[in-house]
Order: sequence, then C-alpha cells, then structure tokens
Amino acid sequence: METLAIVGVGLIGGSFALAVRRAGFAGEILGVSSKRTIDAALAVGAISSGVTLEQAAECADVLYLAQPIDQILHTIEVLGPLARPECLITDAGSTKSLIAAKAAECIRSASFIGGHPMAGKEQRGVEHADADLFRGRPYVLTPTLHPNSNSDEFRLWLVKIGSRIIEMIPERHDRVVALTSHVPQLLSTTLAASLADAGDDAVTQVFGPGLIDMTRLALSAPEVWMSVLETNKLAVLEGLRIFQNELAATMVALESGDVNRLFTHAERFATKIRVN
Amino acid sequence: METLAIVGVGLIGGSFALAVRRAGFAGEILGVSSKRTIDAALAVGAISSGVTLEQAAECADVLYLAQPIDQILHTIEVLGPLARPECLITDAGSTKSLIAAKAAECIRSASFIGGHPMAGKEQRGVEHADADLFRGRPYVLTPTLHPNSNSDEFRLWLVKIGSRIIEMIPERHDRVVALTSHVPQLLSTTLAASLADAGDDAVTQVFGPGLIDMTRLALSAPEVWMSVLETNKLAVLEGLRIFQNELAATMVALESGDVNRLFTHAERFATKIRVN
Repeated sequence: METLAIVGVGLIGGSFALAVRRAGFAGEILGVSSKRTIDAALAVGAISSGVTLEQAAECADVLYLAQPIDQILHTIEVLGPLARPECLITDAGSTKSLIAAKAAECIRSASFIGGHPMAGKEQRGVEHADADLFRGRPYVLTPTLHPNSNSDEFRLWLVKIGSRIIEMIPERHDRVVALTSHVPQLLSTTLAASLADAGDDAVTQVFGPGLIDMTRLALSAPEVWMSVLETNKLAVLEGLRIFQNELAATMVALESGDVNRLFTHAERFATKIRVN
Repeated sequence: METLAIVGVGLIGGSFALAVRRAGFAGEILGVSSKRTIDAALAVGAISSGVTLEQAAECADVLYLAQPIDQILHTIEVLGPLARPECLITDAGSTKSLIAAKAAECIRSASFIGGHPMAGKEQRGVEHADADLFRGRPYVLTPTLHPNSNSDEFRLWLVKIGSRIIEMIPERHDRVVALTSHVPQLLSTTLAASLADAGDDAVTQVFGPGLIDMTRLALSAPEVWMSVLETNKLAVLEGLRIFQNELAATMVALESGDVNRLFTHAERFATKIRVN
C-alpha cells in the first residue's frame, strides 16, 4: 500500500490515518470529506491532501470508508465501476451484513473486506482523532472478497496499529453486536425515557452514581444510531426478545426472593469482560 | 449533640463521622462494630472509641445506624426500650418504609428520622471513608417521629457537611429509588446474565465501552442488594413492569423505523440529571 484514502475523515477515519502514520506508513494519505473536515484533518496532520472520491479511486491502493452506514452503502455503489482491480476497499461501519451484500453486488474486481473497529470515544470528529484509538481493541474483519496483495497488507497494518483481529461472517458479527452494543444502547435509552415519563420530579434528584452509568448511552446522538438500528433491525429485535425473557425470569426470582444466583451469574460475566 | 454513636462503621458510617468532625463537631464519636472494623475506624480517625450498642444507647445523643437494612431493623428493635427520650435515632438504609414502620412500632419516646444519603463509591469499608462523600449529594429525610432538640440539630449537621436535604414520606422515597436505583441495578444484572447465556463466546470479545458502562452495576455485591430488594419488592416489581411497557414501545418504534423521538426524549432526561 503506497496511497491510502480515507473516505469520511471523522474520529475513526482520522484515528486510522494517524495510527498507520505513527506505525511507519510513509505513503500519501488522501482525505475525502467536506471542505470544513478536510481543513480540520490537514490541521491535525491526519491527511496530506483533500481529494474527490473519483480522484481517490484513481490512485488509492486502499480506500478506507469511515462514513455513517447509509453513506458507506452509497459510496460502495459509486466505487463499484471505478475501483481498480489491485485496490482494496474496506469499511468501518458498525453493522456488516448489508454492507457485505452491497459490496458483493457492486464491486467487480477490486478486493473488499468489511471491518468494524470496536473502539471509540464520546467526542466525535477528526479534532479528537487519536493514533492509539485501536490499540488493544478488537477489530472485526469479515471474509475477503477477491483477495489481492493490498488486502493482505491491510491486515498487517491492523496488527501494526495494535488491533486484535477477530474474523467472523457478517451475520454472526451483527448478531453479536446486537447483543453487546445495540440492545444495551436501547436499554439505556428506554430507561431514560421511562424515568422522564415517571410523573415524579424527584427522580431527577434522588439517584446515585449507578443511574449516571446506566443513562450514559442515552446521551448518544440519534443520527448515528438511526442507520445502525435500521441495518440490523431483525437481530436487534431478536436480542430485545431474549432480554425480555431474561427480565421476566429476573422478576420471578425477585418475587420468590431468590436473586442471589442471578447476581452471582451476572457478576461473573461482568468481571470476565473486564479481564479480557 | 455532644456524643455521636455510629452503629456499623463502614463506608457510610465512617464518612459521616469524618464529615461532622471536619465540619467542627468537637464531641465524642463512638463506634459500634466488629473488633476488626473498630480497629480500622480508630486507625483512620473516624471514631474516638469502640463500645457496645448498650453502652452507646446509655450516653449517645445521636445514634447513627449505618448497617445493612436487615441489621438496622434488628438494631431498632434492640434500641426501642433502651434509647433515652432526649436521644435521636437515625439510619442510612437504602429503603425507608419498613424501617419507618419498625421505628414507629418500637421507639417509644426517643426521636427518629429515617435517612438515605444518595452517595457512595465502589470500594466499601471504613478504610475508604471520605469526609467529602456527602458534599453536594442529596440526603433524603423522612418525617420525624417525636421531634426533639437533637433531631433539630442533626439536620443542621447534614447541611454543614454539604448534603442537600430532600424531604419525603417513606413510600414516595421507596417508589423513586425503585425507579432510579433498584430497576437500573436489575437491568444491568439481567443484561450481564443474558449475555452470559448467549451461547456465543464472541460476546466476551466484540463489544465497546458502552457495555462496560451498562454492566458496571452487575459487579455489585449480592449481599448488599438482597435486603434492599427484599424490603422494596412491590415497588421494584412495579418499576420493572413500567420498564417492560416502555421496552415494548421501543420495539414497536424500532419495527416502524421511528426511534428518533424516543432518542431525543431520553437524551433530554439523561442531560437533565447531569446538570442538576
């Protein structure tokens, strides 16, 4: 890979650019974004110049799509007939099935790998990009379409920037993130909405630090979540039904005064994900 | 108040002792706890000596019960016939209805105020006691039984240590904390248990920081929660039923692609409790 193009230079795209640069990438890094974002990305040194998507398709060895999901789907359609066979297209979208299907449909000879870096922070935008964002974090990759030397090299860069690569098919990824990310998001949002509707203003005063933890995700920007939920609707609904059943079991345990086993079971899982 | 006795010198009891001392209390602070805890409390300077409950009842002007709820109920029974009429008995238990009922039944002439400081931290024990634990935090008080000069003075000390006093009847307190504390606890525990049962080990790898927030309460010690849930069972079950209805509405909104309003509503509440 001699030329890398970041399409959508936000927190994730900008962090990937800074990370490969820090890890020794000496080639050019192009950015495709709005004028305002390109200026910000140049200012933090994430990219070396701003170009159009068509210019990026002409010369990039790797096209890294870090846009919202609906825009990634559109970009793949546009790149389909443009991308060179020796190029790799990869994305960082939070759901993978629809993106993989779109890539299989539109991308004729270039390589494609779906990706999902399990990394982020509360602040958005390239101003907050961080070369260490991916370090020690899982990076899910879905199976490679039309492998080539750039798709092989891309995996090496992920290792160099400190990611832990986890490979799985798109459908399994989407089922897992429904359970670990999309359901927790909706529980936090639903909890906050339910308290807003409680009809007793004391709920905004009489609470401890636990409520702050449990409503932090409810602060998430809706515009990010719309396309995530829309492109993973069936898996999320299934995850919520699983949670509903588990909640019904919790209520039965509570009624019979037998929540000890539930707490111990849950505590073991909560501890395990903190050790990993 | 010239002599204060802390019954149960843990994080809360020890922090209250350190806080009033820092705020200028010059009298004696007695501790009633196990030998090991008394030694630790003496070491951090929370108390001036360890005594039995009977000795504390003989000479304390304020008896501050900071034990687990089941032990508070037992202590009130024991203190009933022992407490002097000029004494105030107060407690720091997380549910209030049963404790208030027990006080009304057992305490003949001493004053009693139920209390619930909305403060805490992850570490337990007097070793982690902190004179600033109550500063800026709400401190719920339930109506005073047999007011006397020590119950008046106790309120002044709460203000001096930086608490924000909120007054309400026990039943309203218990309904509110069911919604803001006990339901969120059970959602976190249920979520962790549900992921432990997901049957795909990838859930322990493929997750972001949101799952860490949403499972933090699942790390809570079961022994603390057993008596909280047991003494507030009806309000907690009602709170969970309210959440179930709200979750069903979330699923309908998700199916029809209309979660934007829900997110906006929830975000407003989550922001509001962070400003207060």
